[in-house]
Amino acid sequence: MDLAQKYLAKNIKVIDISGDFRLKSAEEFKAWYKMEHRSPGLMSEAVYGLPELYRPKIQKAKLLSNPGCFPTSAILAAAPLVKHQLVAPDSLVIDSKTGVSGAGRNPNILFHLPECVGNSTAYKIAGHQHTPEIELYLSEQNGSPLKVTFTTHLIPISRGMLTTLYGELKRNLNREQLRQIYRDFYKGEPFIRLKDEDNRLGLGPVVGSNYCDLGVFLDDRTNRVIVISVIDNLVKGASGQAVQNMNLMFGLEETLGLTTPGWLI
Amino acid sequence: MDLAQKYLAKNIKVIDISGDFRLKSAEEFKAWYKMEHRSPGLMSEAVYGLPELYRPKIQKAKLLSNPGCFPTSAILAAAPLVKHQLVAPDSLVIDSKTGVSGAGRNPNILFHLPECVGNSTAYKIAGHQHTPEIELYLSEQNGSPLKVTFTTHLIPISRGMLTTLYGELKRNLNREQLRQIYRDFYKGEPFIRLKDEDNRLGLGPVVGSNYCDLGVFLDDRTNRVIVISVIDNLVKGASGQAVQNMNLMFGLEETLGLTTPGWLI
Amino acid sequence: MDLAQKYLAKNIKVIDISGDFRLKSAEEFKAWYKMEHRSPGLMSEAVYGLPELYRPKIQKAKLLSNPGCFPTSAILAAAPLVKHQLVAPDSLVIDSKTGVSGAGRNPNILFHLPECVGNSTAYKIAGHQHTPEIELYLSEQNGSPLKVTFTTHLIPISRGMLTTLYGELKRNLNREQLRQIYRDFYKGEPFIRLKDEDNRLGLGPVVGSNYCDLGVFLDDRTNRVIVISVIDNLVKGASGQAVQNMNLMFGLEETLGLTTPGWLI
Amino acid sequence: MDLAQKYLAKNIKVIDISGDFRLKSAEEFKAWYKMEHRSPGLMSEAVYGLPELYRPKIQKAKLLSNPGCFPTSAILAAAPLVKHQLVAPDSLVIDSKTGVSGAGRNPNILFHLPECVGNSTAYKIAGHQHTPEIELYLSEQNGSPLKVTFTTHLIPISRGMLTTLYGELKRNLNREQLRQIYRDFYKGEPFIRLKDEDNRLGLGPVVGSNYCDLGVFLDDRTNRVIVISVIDNLVKGASGQAVQNMNLMFGLEETLGLTTPGWLI
Repeated sequence: MDLAQKYLAKNIKVIDISGDFRLKSAEEFKAWYKMEHRSPGLMSEAVYGLPELYRPKIQKAKLLSNPGCFPTSAILAAAPLVKHQLVAPDSLVIDSKTGVSGAGRNPNILFHLPECVGNSTAYKIAGHQHTPEIELYLSEQNGSPLKVTFTTHLIPISRGMLTTLYGELKRNLNREQLRQIYRDFYKGEPFIRLKDEDNRLGLGPVVGSNYCDLGVFLDDRTNRVIVISVIDNLVKGASGQAVQNMNLMFGLEETLGLTTPGWLI
Repeated sequence: MDLAQKYLAKNIKVIDISGDFRLKSAEEFKAWYKMEHRSPGLMSEAVYGLPELYRPKIQKAKLLSNPGCFPTSAILAAAPLVKHQLVAPDSLVIDSKTGVSGAGRNPNILFHLPECVGNSTAYKIAGHQHTPEIELYLSEQNGSPLKVTFTTHLIPISRGMLTTLYGELKRNLNREQLRQIYRDFYKGEPFIRLKDEDNRLGLGPVVGSNYCDLGVFLDDRTNRVIVISVIDNLVKGASGQAVQNMNLMFGLEETLGLTTPGWLI
Repeated sequence: MDLAQKYLAKNIKVIDISGDFRLKSAEEFKAWYKMEHRSPGLMSEAVYGLPELYRPKIQKAKLLSNPGCFPTSAILAAAPLVKHQLVAPDSLVIDSKTGVSGAGRNPNILFHLPECVGNSTAYKIAGHQHTPEIELYLSEQNGSPLKVTFTTHLIPISRGMLTTLYGELKRNLNREQLRQIYRDFYKGEPFIRLKDEDNRLGLGPVVGSNYCDLGVFLDDRTNRVIVISVIDNLVKGASGQAVQNMNLMFGLEETLGLTTPGWLI
Repeated sequence: MDLAQKYLAKNIKVIDISGDFRLKSAEEFKAWYKMEHRSPGLMSEAVYGLPELYRPKIQKAKLLSNPGCFPTSAILAAAPLVKHQLVAPDSLVIDSKTGVSGAGRNPNILFHLPECVGNSTAYKIAGHQHTPEIELYLSEQNGSPLKVTFTTHLIPISRGMLTTLYGELKRNLNREQLRQIYRDFYKGEPFIRLKDEDNRLGLGPVVGSNYCDLGVFLDDRTNRVIVISVIDNLVKGASGQAVQNMNLMFGLEETLGLTTPGWLI
């Protein structure tokens, strides 16, 4: 937020990978990030860089805000349900599991291997700063404000994020119909893969890649839809998506430099 | 189910660590375990070995059914909420993460280290055979039948299980009141530890031990209660609980042999 | 060994990734692999596919024997020392650490994550079947037969192999002179990287790649040279090297398809 | 080294778990630890706390220097060979693999899980400060000075240390004779377990315990003895051994508080 204006003034496009321009309200920013926003005037100008939802805007963006890793995985999982109003809007429960690289590189004993390996920890319960980002863009899909319950868990891997999303189905749909809705919604998307032939879905095939794999499941006993979403938090959840956005902003082929397959296929 | 009757006929007490006597209906058993029950007459006699809920019955039990690991973690997390009818009964979403030892010791390439390490997989989505066991005993607490959504995830650790439980709060309670309800419910329980000073809770302190740590949290923006429950799936989730039950059935001190602290304290 | 002759008869080039044609003597094969060789006549025809030592022969090979992962890491570490007769030939001690993928994909409880994670095991001590392969090709470099002590250890990673080689220096050389000898020996090699600026060397930068990183160190207190060699056992130690050999055998660019950087750079 | 004298002056026994009093020469200390010793006068008074070699002295010690983790594993592996002069004294090569907890708790990005997991690193090659400690006490066993080559490797586990020791056998002994020498040497030792029925040895059974498992092997092709030694670096390699020493110094039962079995039996 300290640098964007300087570059924009020189007509240099900005892709911001921090959380500074993901929200639209300086008050909300302060409430969740625990600091004053120092460039509130730019908040409304920033385009949210989730290509699957905002591609035309991204292509014209001067200031792009690259999404957080958790919101990427959660919004991609929920968007078709919310857009088509298939679920009760306030019924969404989002349970995310993330690798330790998400914690960044500031030295911290909490992220030393002996603290993390053989362990798993729920953290920032009901208080993660990515919550309002998820709500803001899902509310746009929904057409009116919604709130979600969002919980994050650390698991002992380096890279990767698995999000399990739950929602109460409002309409009478079977699993195949739900899957078709997702296929249609993400038709032609180069980095979305629908993978729900089995009733299991792992993050192995996306680690090291820019892909997001989605599996759509139905618990017909409770009428809840369950969507599993997996990404590499450092690629589709960060730098890979930034490159995808750069490609779009500069008229390059969207997939340029991003077609590496995952490591653990 | 093939052996229990033989031992009971000789007046030998039976502690069954399999899933054979956890349900009460042979039809439900067949539906979830995909096989015929070969000793249906004993199903109603078996006492469910969760000491925190059924201690008096366990003390007199001749046929004891030791709970599954997932139901142990889920029922202990939910019981106070359900017993006091604090949550909408059908609102419970249970998201469990388990170590690979839960998969047993039959050689299977799926559980080789290269398939699991650096990975996490959601599996048996909306179909895990522990679902009806969770529902049966929570319904008893509730006083009328309830259904839950239950999803299981493999994480790359050997031992340990972290369950995140979500429920819609029906009454106007703050977090401290919720915590007090849990303290009262589990007062004097030797293996339940309420640990929710911070907004993080990990499974490190229970691995290798018979303890179940519980953290009670409130998402007051969505009025959902979130309970984190951690156990060692091989101890409180299996053999440790079996020993606890044996101690009760034979009039020994309940904690005998079970006070080892966790490894990762 | 059952298929090679059939393809060769049809003038189809064979790249064998098994251990069948790595040795030259059917007796030695039987002694180490515990089975009869069923195609002994082809053993002497096979070219050993270590491009850094045998490139001209590989380019003309019809039957190529792709090296084992341990021999690749050990021979590349030792070859300059042995070729220049800098070390006492029978002084070589080779201590290798390998990821679990080296054990293959036959389901085996020994390789389940709970058996391996948090653990490390020395195995096949003084008896690994890759020992004679290491000796055979180092003896060729040496000009006369030598024997090595070779020990293997399992470490809880999926992919990667770190070999520590020790030898008694016969000549008076400092570390910089040793490093220069390695630089000269591997000059122009596309997949050998000398990395010994620091006194540490890890396998992170080679995992997922066809590179072999080498570090040359000197314990001048004991006059021993220590060479650290790291490869990905599945790439330079197996399929990547097979592709490199294929490129050479078919007149393609040697690095074709093999320039992916490591994952953990 | 700043505190010991103060406590000794008050007749309070001191068990020092740091490296300050493990060496006997202030010059050597400075050379390896890169700092001046501030209490050189006490260096010769300190008793080295390896009970298997120095039990009588430990029982009378006022200032006890608790051994380093690497020296514990290396000296216990080598002592019988050196004491009986079975190996060429300068032929010892010691290759150690350690878990990350050995690096301590000062926050350091090098020990974050994403840097360590899926990785292994050789470090402080030919320069680890535990080298002179190993040499000092093995020289005592040998009766004259010897030097060793000692190399350390980080492996992605929390706790545990596996040391592979190589030495050139000077006498004509078979493996069974070597094993008998170890059995005799460690007869009655409560924390030494000889485990060499198979040709594999892992650290699983010692993690979490004060035991040191030893396996003695013979590479009769090269006439080298190979000894595998495994300990938990935080127990027999640190605090457990300190408790063992305390028990001896205060006339308590030596095994008091130390008989917990390993976790991964």
